[in-house]
Amino acid sequence: MSGKIQNSPKYFMIAREMIGAIKSGKLKPGMRVLSENEIISRYRVSNTTARKSLQSVENQGYIKKVKGKGTFVRESSVVRPVTRILSFTKNMLEAGLEPSTKVLDSRISPENYSVEIGGRVYTLKAPVCKIHRLRFADNIPMMLEVRYISLALCPGIEKEDFSRSLYDLYEKKYQLSLSNVYQELGAIMIDRGVQDFFDLTEPIPALLVNGVTFCGKEMILEMEKSIYRGDKYRFLVGAT
Amino acid sequence: MSGKIQNSPKYFMIAREMIGAIKSGKLKPGMRVLSENEIISRYRVSNTTARKSLQSVENQGYIKKVKGKGTFVRESSVVRPVTRILSFTKNMLEAGLEPSTKVLDSRISPENYSVEIGGRVYTLKAPVCKIHRLRFADNIPMMLEVRYISLALCPGIEKEDFSRSLYDLYEKKYQLSLSNVYQELGAIMIDRGVQDFFDLTEPIPALLVNGVTFCGKEMILEMEKSIYRGDKYRFLVGAT
Repeated sequence: MSGKIQNSPKYFMIAREMIGAIKSGKLKPGMRVLSENEIISRYRVSNTTARKSLQSVENQGYIKKVKGKGTFVRESSVVRPVTRILSFTKNMLEAGLEPSTKVLDSRISPENYSVEIGGRVYTLKAPVCKIHRLRFADNIPMMLEVRYISLALCPGIEKEDFSRSLYDLYEKKYQLSLSNVYQELGAIMIDRGVQDFFDLTEPIPALLVNGVTFCGKEMILEMEKSIYRGDKYRFLVGAT
Repeated sequence: MSGKIQNSPKYFMIAREMIGAIKSGKLKPGMRVLSENEIISRYRVSNTTARKSLQSVENQGYIKKVKGKGTFVRESSVVRPVTRILSFTKNMLEAGLEPSTKVLDSRISPENYSVEIGGRVYTLKAPVCKIHRLRFADNIPMMLEVRYISLALCPGIEKEDFSRSLYDLYEKKYQLSLSNVYQELGAIMIDRGVQDFFDLTEPIPALLVNGVTFCGKEMILEMEKSIYRGDKYRFLVGAT
């Protein structure tokens, strides 16, 4: 059913070869790839096939056309499965990348935090530990987040080292077992203000995530508001 | 735990009142909402509370700041649950909106269609029925899609009326039961070329969905590539 390459059309085999070269590192981010004309002459195919092969590689997020300049290898993107509870740290390690974290700010807030997810309002009772962090993979800024943590469930957490995985902290230090997560995903622009965190010189689209994490029997452990850059992330979901 | 409004902070109650006015239609899309100063004098609150209440309403996607002009009610957005198999038609009806569809193109393609989702390549065997459609809710263009359908599983489908729900067609005409869906979500820009379909005069962020739908025991029934506008859609996911 899948992966039966021998039956695949020519454009797909050309696309596969190009993607293979990108994945193996032979073609690196920022390098120019073959143009339509170069594909036509190297593989002796029609311009339709050449165009479709580039289109296919572009659709899969590996390359990017720059008007009047050519087509280039994009920074590679990470797949984030959102139907299982997965920390940023573990997601990066599974993708073969080295995660790191910069804590931008942390404080105790005396106010409840409320947010609407999927048409329902969730309230995390004060006091709340509020943490701003920037998360990296191989030293590239990937995601900017604010986490709101229940101090009732995690007393003293404000004294912890927030450069580590919070999920790890909940489970190991507080013996809390995360039961479920609801998240709402939207598309936004990363522009002035937020752009600088990501070392970006121009606006790019991004995924905005508002989420609530429960532990045990329907207790709200934490809420999050995160910005995942669109050029680095694809979210994977499944439905049955 | 949730919905305990009596314990909520002041900013949240102000935000809730504003959202109530938007939901009830008292405040309509495009209308200006109270400014920070107007909130301060009407509710006799601090500028911090006023700013937080506007921030909260904005974070939930109901209003939008326009630099130098004020803050305005956004077109309302729809929540799409992505952990159950749900047609556009049904999703809109559940949201209380009237779905409609414009078929832009449909044809039979003699080529296999392959796409990578979550790091795995899925191939839909030719011949494939390829359909371009624009989907509306209350006459507003919401989503642009290409669907690739297996003609082996749906013989003669090319003669059907594609302004109706395809999921409905699979189930009622072909007695196929959809077993599962994998989708990859990314953030992209709707810009020149696609912008016109949505009656947009400037680029906006959007969610790009690449998906594969199975029926029965691991047979690929269809694949999709869809663009959901970011100002209209939020995707809801859950994880356990």
